[in-house]
Amino acid sequence: MVSDVNRLKEAIDPGRIKHRIEEFSEIGKDPIRGMTRPGLSEEETIAKRKAISLMKEIGLHVSVDPFGNIIGRRDGSDPRTLPIMTGSHLDTVQNGGRFDGTVGVVAALEVIHALNTLKVITRHPIEVIVFTSEEPNRFGISAFGSKGLSAKWNFGELSKLKDEKGTPFPVALRSAGIDWESLPKIPQPSRLHAFIELHVEQGQGLYQKGIPIGVVLGVTGIVRQQVTVRGESNHTGTTSMTVRKDALTTASEIILAAEKCVQTEGDEDATATVGRIQVRPNQVNIVPGEVLLTVEFRSFLPERLSKMKERLAENLSEIRERRKTEILAEEILDQPPLRFSEKVIHSILKGTHALGFPSLSLFSMAGHDANHLASITDAGMIFVPSKEGFSHCPQEWTDAEDVAKGCMVLLHSILHIDGENQ
Amino acid sequence: MVSDVNRLKEAIDPGRIKHRIEEFSEIGKDPIRGMTRPGLSEEETIAKRKAISLMKEIGLHVSVDPFGNIIGRRDGSDPRTLPIMTGSHLDTVQNGGRFDGTVGVVAALEVIHALNTLKVITRHPIEVIVFTSEEPNRFGISAFGSKGLSAKWNFGELSKLKDEKGTPFPVALRSAGIDWESLPKIPQPSRLHAFIELHVEQGQGLYQKGIPIGVVLGVTGIVRQQVTVRGESNHTGTTSMTVRKDALTTASEIILAAEKCVQTEGDEDATATVGRIQVRPNQVNIVPGEVLLTVEFRSFLPERLSKMKERLAENLSEIRERRKTEILAEEILDQPPLRFSEKVIHSILKGTHALGFPSLSLFSMAGHDANHLASITDAGMIFVPSKEGFSHCPQEWTDAEDVAKGCMVLLHSILHIDGENQ
Repeated sequence: MVSDVNRLKEAIDPGRIKHRIEEFSEIGKDPIRGMTRPGLSEEETIAKRKAISLMKEIGLHVSVDPFGNIIGRRDGSDPRTLPIMTGSHLDTVQNGGRFDGTVGVVAALEVIHALNTLKVITRHPIEVIVFTSEEPNRFGISAFGSKGLSAKWNFGELSKLKDEKGTPFPVALRSAGIDWESLPKIPQPSRLHAFIELHVEQGQGLYQKGIPIGVVLGVTGIVRQQVTVRGESNHTGTTSMTVRKDALTTASEIILAAEKCVQTEGDEDATATVGRIQVRPNQVNIVPGEVLLTVEFRSFLPERLSKMKERLAENLSEIRERRKTEILAEEILDQPPLRFSEKVIHSILKGTHALGFPSLSLFSMAGHDANHLASITDAGMIFVPSKEGFSHCPQEWTDAEDVAKGCMVLLHSILHIDGENQ
Repeated sequence: MVSDVNRLKEAIDPGRIKHRIEEFSEIGKDPIRGMTRPGLSEEETIAKRKAISLMKEIGLHVSVDPFGNIIGRRDGSDPRTLPIMTGSHLDTVQNGGRFDGTVGVVAALEVIHALNTLKVITRHPIEVIVFTSEEPNRFGISAFGSKGLSAKWNFGELSKLKDEKGTPFPVALRSAGIDWESLPKIPQPSRLHAFIELHVEQGQGLYQKGIPIGVVLGVTGIVRQQVTVRGESNHTGTTSMTVRKDALTTASEIILAAEKCVQTEGDEDATATVGRIQVRPNQVNIVPGEVLLTVEFRSFLPERLSKMKERLAENLSEIRERRKTEILAEEILDQPPLRFSEKVIHSILKGTHALGFPSLSLFSMAGHDANHLASITDAGMIFVPSKEGFSHCPQEWTDAEDVAKGCMVLLHSILHIDGENQ
């Protein structure tokens, strides 16, 4: 352990962090519309190649796993120990920002820099990772790399995926330098000592309160239901209001009912959203005959998720009865809330105290690579503030000084975990 | 005049009518999803070609006007008289039915058959017409042919139209065999003595009461507003319910408010519909940032239309205020209610009495080619029942016997008009 926190703080360089974020932001940049560096694209591959060269510069032993995840290893003193891993992803959503994912990779590299500066030899190996394709990609899947590392993929299903142009998933992998044939068909989870990911908050919690560090206790649960409303298409002029079965007025009631569910049954952080809707035939002069929509509930309290689902089901029955339309709800995602490792949370809190940084314990309302790592090792996350909460858009912003504070906490936590049970 | 109504009745052949409807229904037919024979499509052109050959078979002199309208003429005895015209259209909506439009063309042909059988020489020429592209087509316009015949188009605006693929309107006309260059740039309305169109009701009025003939007094007024809702796109998990500006929940309130407007301000026959909606970005995990929708009101009472518009505007203000979203409403159509010619209405009523058919005087809640003809000649319409009111969908149905009764009234009316003021 570095007992002098001032030396530790000085080993983290905000200037270098700023420079690194800017360097990565040149890849897939659009002058007006932000970053477009989708998973499995040429742009992601270029960003990963840059990460490899940065890793080599700071003395890491670089390897690429079968899922295309880039791993840079700094050896520890005790060859019997498992690695402590840190990192994030370099892909972005369409017209996204320059911080989501990238800051976690930059922070991991910065921690290695600092360890080199401080001439610290850890007991465990420290591994920096760049996960492949974390955001939802053109095949409709997310967290390809971290789910691969955690042995969560069903290869039969993956092999059937196609993008909008009909490109099979294995072909797209090959273009991204990943060989489908060499993917382990019998999943083998990696063996790690711990995993910590630094990430931007993507919300306003830290920013509004002016707090630099978020200690992430867990990740929200997500329930998604695909709702199909079937009414009757008919001429808008000749079909009197009393005999109509309008799928869109029915859908409008469902959208407002979902919103109401979170007001009556949700907690303060819970959300309800209908983000996608398709209407058929969607013509000015035809009463809509069919509507498909997706209701999404998020909460980190399992009982609140259940209550919102129950209440929605009651509402759907009532609306179905009154509107004389068919309503079918099918659950397409049920991702239970996740609690991160007490050991990792403790190490992060310990770091914020030692460094004298105010912190806020909170839950992540979005999914991350860390969610998947949590199933194979002790995992946790550190959040840094997002200016005005903007996320997945060009306005994303986090000051380099805030990333630097996060890096200090990350470094402290890694050293703390490394030093435990010695 | 044919004084013996029994001879007139016998000259109309339900079997031939049935056969003709079936023949046309083979063009653009989908075994499960009804008829797709859109305006200016290959399918419409094939159907029009079939009409030409049927016209020739029954001795009509066929010509095609600059708008692609097919006109089959049966000469009258007095060369100084203007033609009495009857007919309708052969295009359909996407996945529409086999009766809308087609029965009016089949009825017109049947009237000529009957005149031939009865060896009647009328004083006026009788013209059978097939109008081009009556339904809303892929360029967003309707009644192309009948508005052309009535000299209603602005050619500057037409020349700018493009379909979703970017095809300019003049190019699409050319593919449908209509030469843009030969369209009369100085509109010249056709000169007619009268126009009568037979059409399916597209509502349940006649069907529910078991009445075979509808005497159409006029056509509904239609107001359409394009409403744009602008909120803020953001991550569904990290954007708390209290700070959201959700364009889709706002739009849902507008859809339900429009429905409420007709309940509080409309008459019994008035309708309010949101038939089309577009959501951006329309992704499961993003709060909708923008919604475009079209509100349509119909009524044949001008003061009810005004009241519904007023009430909607009040509702939009209230919703805008409460939801903190931008709402813009732009009127894209304001078609006032229309009254048909007393002379034609009288001739139709006379026919139903003479033939002993019960009839119902009613208003049309849909637009028709006859609406446009009403601006250049004495025009009117005869409705025949639509089974269960289905319209613009594969379930459309009218028995051939009902079409036959309509043909008898149409024939009687034409002969009555022909015989007036002799």
